[in-house]
Amino acid sequence: MTIILKIGGSVLTDKNKVSAAKPEAIARVAREVSEALSPRLVLVHGAGSFGHHQAKEYRLKDGLNDWSIKGILPTHNAVKSLNAMVVDALQMSGVDALPVHPLSNCILNNGRIEHMCMEAITRMLRAEIVPVLHGDVVMDTAKGVGILSGDQLVAYLARALKADRVGIGTNVDGVLRNGSVIRELKPANIREVESILSGSVGVDVTGGMYGKIAELMALAGEGIPSVVFNAEKPGNIVKFLRDDLAEGTLISGD
Amino acid sequence: MTIILKIGGSVLTDKNKVSAAKPEAIARVAREVSEALSPRLVLVHGAGSFGHHQAKEYRLKDGLNDWSIKGILPTHNAVKSLNAMVVDALQMSGVDALPVHPLSNCILNNGRIEHMCMEAITRMLRAEIVPVLHGDVVMDTAKGVGILSGDQLVAYLARALKADRVGIGTNVDGVLRNGSVIRELKPANIREVESILSGSVGVDVTGGMYGKIAELMALAGEGIPSVVFNAEKPGNIVKFLRDDLAEGTLISGD
Repeated sequence: MTIILKIGGSVLTDKNKVSAAKPEAIARVAREVSEALSPRLVLVHGAGSFGHHQAKEYRLKDGLNDWSIKGILPTHNAVKSLNAMVVDALQMSGVDALPVHPLSNCILNNGRIEHMCMEAITRMLRAEIVPVLHGDVVMDTAKGVGILSGDQLVAYLARALKADRVGIGTNVDGVLRNGSVIRELKPANIREVESILSGSVGVDVTGGMYGKIAELMALAGEGIPSVVFNAEKPGNIVKFLRDDLAEGTLISGD
Repeated sequence: MTIILKIGGSVLTDKNKVSAAKPEAIARVAREVSEALSPRLVLVHGAGSFGHHQAKEYRLKDGLNDWSIKGILPTHNAVKSLNAMVVDALQMSGVDALPVHPLSNCILNNGRIEHMCMEAITRMLRAEIVPVLHGDVVMDTAKGVGILSGDQLVAYLARALKADRVGIGTNVDGVLRNGSVIRELKPANIREVESILSGSVGVDVTGGMYGKIAELMALAGEGIPSVVFNAEKPGNIVKFLRDDLAEGTLISGD
């Protein structure tokens, strides 16, 4: 049983400030992962306020130029510092977690993953170590440099590792329509989703809820189901890991 | 012209203490790199006192077990913090440098590199960015976990990138015989080297001078020359990068 769990940057950080972590939320997430740990778990987290502002300031989405090149390191360092907090919190909760940084092992082609080195991740999973990856600034074969969102990363890892289940822990109760949670979505609903979703609050250079759902819809079409749920609600991560979550939006192909 | 330059941990840190950097030495090394920067340069640094002590305490060389698993993160974090100092110093000297962490992109097989993901490094070089790698703790397909020395990394990168020249900046004047520098070594001299070299001072789990020379001898046999030189002597890094270094030990195949 291979599980990919993403915890959104909005859960771990205050997206409206620059590099502002929520240490209590990070510690709680780590405790929940520890409580319901399964042997083949990959954790991915968004950058939240660590990285998005830097990426925007240096216009990393424009590709490589004399200005953006100066923004790669500060953007990478910002999200790496959030990653270190997450990994440390997991270790303090007794989880053998290790950081894996996309800038080191991944390249994009025009914003989409062209290659990601899976060997270290696979080896960690065999040793029952939880690899902890994150949205990052990454070299791009077409544009020089680009942004890899945690959501694209989740979809890539789910395919590469033939995951059984994907969980997307956000700060809302699921995919919403007029304030109510859509209980189930199928790839056929993509047009509907396009029309109902508006952008998230705060700065997010990677596309907010729509980008997230588009990645998951494609995944569902390939037989990998996912659940978008509220990870700010204590207990939900434990329930998701135990396959016992009765809320959120299920995105599946059947 | 592709150049691999390794700066030994002994140049950047005090190997007899735990996690003690030499900030002035790091800044000077960065200035020298900046002064003689060539477009395709890869920098590798040793762990020095960042990582060796942790690796020894947790017996990472024994492979993965209940004790060593707790040492992976502290060892990786220690050398990563040295790496951050080196990258920051380079950036402050105007060099577009980025970190690349072997734990993320490399696996060993019984202590030897089985696979290293070169894509990100290659892309950085094309963008005239200097990738900065380091000795690290790395997953191992045979032993679970192992230590990747900066020296093995240098040899691997030199082959993978078909490097033209390799520089090994240490805290001595070259390979020494009775206190005098051996000016030239060829692969045929390997037995002689075995007999004259004794271990370096301080703790070094990766083999000291002998391991270094064995890697370089093999490389020389494949047509990639290297120079072991004193990187504590101001100006030597500039001279090496400009191919104008008249001292040290040249290890070449012809």
